[in-house]
Amino acid sequence: MVQIKKLNSADSNFNQALQQLLSFDTIMDESVDTTVAQILADIKARGNAAVIEYTHRFDHVHASSINTLELTRRELQQSLSTLPVKQRQALEHAASRIRSYHEKQVASSWHYQEADDTMLGQKVTPLDRVGLYVPGGKASYPSSVLMNAIPAKVAGVKELFMVVPTPHGEKNDMVLAAAAISDVDRVFTIGGAQAIGALAYGTETIPQVDKIVGPGNAYVAAAKRRVFGIVGIDMVAGPSEILVICDGKTDPDWIAMDLFSQAEHDELAQSILLSPDAGFLDKVAQSIDQLIETMPRKNVICAALENRGALIRVRDLEEACTIANSISPEHLELSVDRPEHWVDKIRHAGAIFMGRHTCEALGDYCAGPNHVLPTSRTARFSSPLGVYDFQKRSSLIQVSEQGAAELGEVASILANCEGLQAHARSAEYRIKA
Amino acid sequence: MVQIKKLNSADSNFNQALQQLLSFDTIMDESVDTTVAQILADIKARGNAAVIEYTHRFDHVHASSINTLELTRRELQQSLSTLPVKQRQALEHAASRIRSYHEKQVASSWHYQEADDTMLGQKVTPLDRVGLYVPGGKASYPSSVLMNAIPAKVAGVKELFMVVPTPHGEKNDMVLAAAAISDVDRVFTIGGAQAIGALAYGTETIPQVDKIVGPGNAYVAAAKRRVFGIVGIDMVAGPSEILVICDGKTDPDWIAMDLFSQAEHDELAQSILLSPDAGFLDKVAQSIDQLIETMPRKNVICAALENRGALIRVRDLEEACTIANSISPEHLELSVDRPEHWVDKIRHAGAIFMGRHTCEALGDYCAGPNHVLPTSRTARFSSPLGVYDFQKRSSLIQVSEQGAAELGEVASILANCEGLQAHARSAEYRIKA
Repeated sequence: MVQIKKLNSADSNFNQALQQLLSFDTIMDESVDTTVAQILADIKARGNAAVIEYTHRFDHVHASSINTLELTRRELQQSLSTLPVKQRQALEHAASRIRSYHEKQVASSWHYQEADDTMLGQKVTPLDRVGLYVPGGKASYPSSVLMNAIPAKVAGVKELFMVVPTPHGEKNDMVLAAAAISDVDRVFTIGGAQAIGALAYGTETIPQVDKIVGPGNAYVAAAKRRVFGIVGIDMVAGPSEILVICDGKTDPDWIAMDLFSQAEHDELAQSILLSPDAGFLDKVAQSIDQLIETMPRKNVICAALENRGALIRVRDLEEACTIANSISPEHLELSVDRPEHWVDKIRHAGAIFMGRHTCEALGDYCAGPNHVLPTSRTARFSSPLGVYDFQKRSSLIQVSEQGAAELGEVASILANCEGLQAHARSAEYRIKA
Repeated sequence: MVQIKKLNSADSNFNQALQQLLSFDTIMDESVDTTVAQILADIKARGNAAVIEYTHRFDHVHASSINTLELTRRELQQSLSTLPVKQRQALEHAASRIRSYHEKQVASSWHYQEADDTMLGQKVTPLDRVGLYVPGGKASYPSSVLMNAIPAKVAGVKELFMVVPTPHGEKNDMVLAAAAISDVDRVFTIGGAQAIGALAYGTETIPQVDKIVGPGNAYVAAAKRRVFGIVGIDMVAGPSEILVICDGKTDPDWIAMDLFSQAEHDELAQSILLSPDAGFLDKVAQSIDQLIETMPRKNVICAALENRGALIRVRDLEEACTIANSISPEHLELSVDRPEHWVDKIRHAGAIFMGRHTCEALGDYCAGPNHVLPTSRTARFSSPLGVYDFQKRSSLIQVSEQGAAELGEVASILANCEGLQAHARSAEYRIKA
């Protein structure tokens, strides 16, 4: 029996119980942070030599030079060609759908002309060079390569570097194949804080990048936080979350498995079900108990469901949407009739899966939208990873002589109010002319 | 005589000299960070009472309750009505142009249907609630209120709160008038790390916001860095920078004043001029020496120009653009013939001011584009503040029965490769149906 919490929104202590369920403190491990600071300083000071040493120490890979830690395009293609046909096709199918979706996100430069010929606009350009971190070992996911690399390439990033550690020299063909499919330009088999340092500062061999994306362990996360500002970074992700809203008419086994699919990520993952149908909640609880026995990752799923999961009875679907907004989940399934009606009531969610056939797993791999999503209530203010994360904007301002005369007056008045007389004078010069 | 550096790109040690000129270490003051951590913890634990105490201690304002620290809409309107007509008109003119420009940045939801009726898209929504920090005292700039508040309101943010400290009770009418013009919803006269804490955690009276924007001193910056993740924040800005590229045909007084207008911000501000015309560089140096005597902020300007300024002779305009890209400046003036030709060669800059009449000061106040721009080479990967900072996206996925059958196969193969069997099973359920 999985001891998953059962809550009822009608209970007087419901809000408190919900807050407790959601509360999650990221504990910053000081010793991790100190180690990372030392590694970064060392990479910055000694470049290649330090990268080689740390790779030897942590990954047990001995390299005579940094060049031997770079994989050639041919090696990536080889990994792709060794895959069973079905796996290769699945990767390529997923990549093609991810590419099509992300092409819709490309922003273009724009400008407009005013009556006096003043031109205003915004120039949109891709980032020059991006680094993609891919974890080694068990958590080495080919889908993550596709989801991070393809938006960068669609944005027009010319140089996309991937770093992936190969502990004891062990490579993951599926990951390298995904790199080949997504047109990653260079791959270095390095990892940890040393890889983040190499990308952020550059070494004699590895050029400095402009942004680093991709998931990693506590050391990688701490290193990314530290180099932020020198390079851009994506969000540092918290544990994964799913919130399912169900009207009670979906097969309870399906919903139980959807909750499992989030819970199997790790013991801190969060799976919550909201339904107005008490009988249905009971059925899902039964499905959980039956299905859990068949799951290879049973222990992880159990721990996650018991620690952070819940089956919550709500008054109606309206209230479910209100609660969903307050939770602002990473993944939200609307397993209901007419999901297009209810989606209008959702303001905060990383991704919204509409209808009984749209399980989260389809979105994780191949529907097209990105699986890198805001966690821990950050969907209140942030967005899925997208092409917009690999483009940036520059304002364009070209003021005509007539425009300068008019705007110069305004700027001069405001600058003088702010005590910035050089600003005022600079604007006034353009009036006289 | 202002001792501004003179460099020549043809010199053998030029690259090194340029690196040295640009290098700028943000020193994180540990004692500031410790103080801030304590204040934040205290605000989180004790809410209103702590806010009132710190406001008393740091701003010497005694408040019996938090309500007396809130300004009414009427008080803001009063500030607006007390302004001299010219100032009021200047503020309104600037606001109207800023609004028009930012309206071009509004993103809309989009979706598309595939042949099998699967729907994919992205839902764009404004943030619910945003906090705008405005410094008190001398650095209290009405233009900064307009530049931060208007994009939020154009994005559709329903609740826009402003916090501004009033040391010894002193209010800045111009700042409050700017708040009235930009439709700020609530204003609290609190500041420092305590204001950031109140916005980030919420108190009994002040609701938690979703994002905090706006400039501030070292305490405010440290507090924003600490609450990042609980709420969104804008970038923590470094010293302001201008890079001017001039072909030698602009009045040297104009260029000197443009360099001053950046230098007058503070002693760490950076003003650099690139020109292929050695004689012109000498003339600008002469203008600097003549004009400096007339500037009320002479000392600050001198210090900035001597510490971090430079007049650089380049081979040609082509090389100037290459150097500009490597500097990735916050502000770039193209004071040249045919700026529309040269702008194509610029990849990294916060804002590009095209043509001799387009001085940076016009952009700072009233041209329309935002004056909150990426500093310290971050234009390589980030953008001016815009409406896009106050909108966020949710992926939309609605897979049809037929689509689920096809995508389920792909997801199942990839999930099994990654050892995530619950993901695979969840997808497979949707195939059978």
